[in-house]
Amino acid sequence: TRTTDLGWFTPLTCLSFLYSPARAALLTGRLPIRNGFYTTNAHARNAYTPQEIVGGISKEEILLPEILKKRGYVSKIVGKWHLGHREQYLPLERGFDQWFGSPNCHFGPYNTSYRPNIPVYNNSEMIGRYYEEFEIDERTGESNLTQIYLQEGLDFIFQQTLARQPFFLYWAPDATHAPVYASKHFLGKSQRGRYGDAVMELDYSVGQILAWLVTLGIDKNTFVFFTSDNGAALMSGPKQSGSNGPFLCGKETTFEGGMREPAIAWWPGHIPAGTVSYQLGSVMDLFTTSLTLAGLAAPFDRVIDGLDLTPSLFNNSMTDRPIFYYRGNQMMAVRVGPYKAHYWTWSNSWEEFNKGINFCPGQEVTGVTTHTQQEHTMQPLIIHLGRDPGEKYPISVLSKEYQTVLSRVTLIVEEHQKTLVPGQPQLNMCDLAVMNWAPPGCERLGKCLKPPQSQPWKCDWPH
Amino acid sequence: TRTTDLGWFTPLTCLSFLYSPARAALLTGRLPIRNGFYTTNAHARNAYTPQEIVGGISKEEILLPEILKKRGYVSKIVGKWHLGHREQYLPLERGFDQWFGSPNCHFGPYNTSYRPNIPVYNNSEMIGRYYEEFEIDERTGESNLTQIYLQEGLDFIFQQTLARQPFFLYWAPDATHAPVYASKHFLGKSQRGRYGDAVMELDYSVGQILAWLVTLGIDKNTFVFFTSDNGAALMSGPKQSGSNGPFLCGKETTFEGGMREPAIAWWPGHIPAGTVSYQLGSVMDLFTTSLTLAGLAAPFDRVIDGLDLTPSLFNNSMTDRPIFYYRGNQMMAVRVGPYKAHYWTWSNSWEEFNKGINFCPGQEVTGVTTHTQQEHTMQPLIIHLGRDPGEKYPISVLSKEYQTVLSRVTLIVEEHQKTLVPGQPQLNMCDLAVMNWAPPGCERLGKCLKPPQSQPWKCDWPH
Repeated sequence: TRTTDLGWFTPLTCLSFLYSPARAALLTGRLPIRNGFYTTNAHARNAYTPQEIVGGISKEEILLPEILKKRGYVSKIVGKWHLGHREQYLPLERGFDQWFGSPNCHFGPYNTSYRPNIPVYNNSEMIGRYYEEFEIDERTGESNLTQIYLQEGLDFIFQQTLARQPFFLYWAPDATHAPVYASKHFLGKSQRGRYGDAVMELDYSVGQILAWLVTLGIDKNTFVFFTSDNGAALMSGPKQSGSNGPFLCGKETTFEGGMREPAIAWWPGHIPAGTVSYQLGSVMDLFTTSLTLAGLAAPFDRVIDGLDLTPSLFNNSMTDRPIFYYRGNQMMAVRVGPYKAHYWTWSNSWEEFNKGINFCPGQEVTGVTTHTQQEHTMQPLIIHLGRDPGEKYPISVLSKEYQTVLSRVTLIVEEHQKTLVPGQPQLNMCDLAVMNWAPPGCERLGKCLKPPQSQPWKCDWPH
Repeated sequence: TRTTDLGWFTPLTCLSFLYSPARAALLTGRLPIRNGFYTTNAHARNAYTPQEIVGGISKEEILLPEILKKRGYVSKIVGKWHLGHREQYLPLERGFDQWFGSPNCHFGPYNTSYRPNIPVYNNSEMIGRYYEEFEIDERTGESNLTQIYLQEGLDFIFQQTLARQPFFLYWAPDATHAPVYASKHFLGKSQRGRYGDAVMELDYSVGQILAWLVTLGIDKNTFVFFTSDNGAALMSGPKQSGSNGPFLCGKETTFEGGMREPAIAWWPGHIPAGTVSYQLGSVMDLFTTSLTLAGLAAPFDRVIDGLDLTPSLFNNSMTDRPIFYYRGNQMMAVRVGPYKAHYWTWSNSWEEFNKGINFCPGQEVTGVTTHTQQEHTMQPLIIHLGRDPGEKYPISVLSKEYQTVLSRVTLIVEEHQKTLVPGQPQLNMCDLAVMNWAPPGCERLGKCLKPPQSQPWKCDWPH
């Protein structure tokens, strides 16, 4: 048979956008500027899906599990959804057969008269809320959430294996996002504080999933991909975030520290262990690659940005392709081969910076980590990421190398911009009335809260 | 028999001082402040052995190969010596039986009427000079030096194996130091420019040495240790230096980017492959560890700073020990467990910085990467290197953690300073007359140059 079992786990994503937009890109194979997961309220802003967001992933988009269904795949998401929390946007409306997790991040705890705590769903009904039924101890950082998500993933794999059922598991725990938590067994065990403890628990969990596939004898027909949706959130400080090593700045920026992610593909018997691929990839590629593996075609009626990575995965071949780095409605940079051209630079505003919000702590590269939105479209900053992974030394505009690269990059950017049709922006409106006051299932739990009057406003995206 | 074959290769060193001082520390097992490899011409300066240096390693110091000789070891240094280039300071005067390499760095090429090119020695005689008999192409960066050094190392190992002779090989190539070179086969092969090419050739060479030990069947009785003598020399720019990843600043500083180095120990059958040790080590430990392996005692008549690492290497046990970070005559910082306390901070002077000499390009941590020599002895900056490997977030002096750590660190620093007897500084005087004008062997080559009149001066160490 041509059908291939797909088992994925991960807080998936690789390159090019941030949190909610990255997840939208992963499941649609399309840039957020096309699939609508961005804002036009202000120029070049990182929008996502807080509780007050009115929008979500558009009905006009086709999501990966919706297509996989055609070949009989059963799909489950475990963990954070982040593509809209109102009923019409939830995972079971969008191709997933099962869900265990939350629509938003585990921020909180909140004074529930002003702001409800985030619900945890089992399929289409809330079964509790973070900081209430699902405990997170603010002081000690103890929480069993990763263990619960691990168990949900393992159970799903077990049930599908028993039923000899092809499956797609999107394992998207929210561990390592601030406020950082780990379970009792891992707290204090790493040498990197609470953040390290959370990473250790995640690492353990991934190991458990792989071991389980081997135990069940389905490792040779299960494709596993691990990656993350953005670089370390440096503004969360050393106790609540990791390090981006040599890369510049972190989450919220289009510097490498915000965009470049490790990625591991695992498929015993198909992908040789220990090999390294230099293929430039993006989370959108997982959409296209998964469809290829399942013997399915990507939609023909729209632009798909994802690349089929199977030649890289199975033959370690290389495809030259550009990657566009957006911040909201603005293409900030493009990567072509080893070069990156910055058309706009911005870390965050002086106003935020002076309040202590710092996306590049300890780093300052004159003319690169700018605190105003700096346009370079007439003369982009060009960097060779091989020689200069930290984006500290833009190539001299007087050099022959600069001129050669610029000609090549210009053609690619012009082609991209000429053919681009921006999607309808979904992240412009906010309203306290749409928060998680009374999710489905709240009556059974006796946990329905009363929403305030609807008073929509244009969301303020400060960075 | 208790005797163990020792085979070492490397531009050896780990922590605590810079280039020449690191090498002096490695071979004496003692801090440079004790063995005299420092200057008192100005406060907290990085001194080394340029061509005009008058001094070298003191006769009062005992060097590792001098002790190993007692158990019949034959010792060779391949590569850069850097402990004084005048005749009385050369390797064959200090316990080494063989030498192939140069006394100083491969800086050049020079106009030889003002400054001779650096000689390359075979044992006690010069056999040519860099940029003359030993070519380095400035423009293309091509040079066979690493290949020559590799061959010298392999030949030595082969001869000692044939003779069933215990040996100590100190393989100290100068590749990856600016001006960076690689041989034709490696140039343009890496994805990180010429610097990457040089690293690739070094990696290949280390692989060849290990493979050779296996081929000769002596891998199970040869202890190999690999490390470096300082972090990437960031002031050399992206084409001529590497990256220090998450660590702050680079060579010439006492921040982690200047001090922390990878280290790999290899001994099939004795050291389990793939294990990681969290033991805090220094190059000085190689002195003590090597003596233990050879069944020899360290000198009793002086303070030895090196720790015997054999418990860590063979049982992965941990010893708590402080590491003192010096810059010339000044203790700048101390590491105790996961904590580092900065007593003085300094990157480099405003004067140098304004000329474009930058030891921390793209990095700036207020109050930490200071451009004046900043004293914090009354209230050291304390950092938890586990949570904050980039030294960006000094712990609040108001916290309980700060007070607890400070009490512990203070005792250790007081004890260190109370018992410290600084050695006679060897790096204070310079003189053009002492440069490599007419090294031994120059007559045979017809390459003797005429030295100028002796006019000694106090060397100027700007940083």
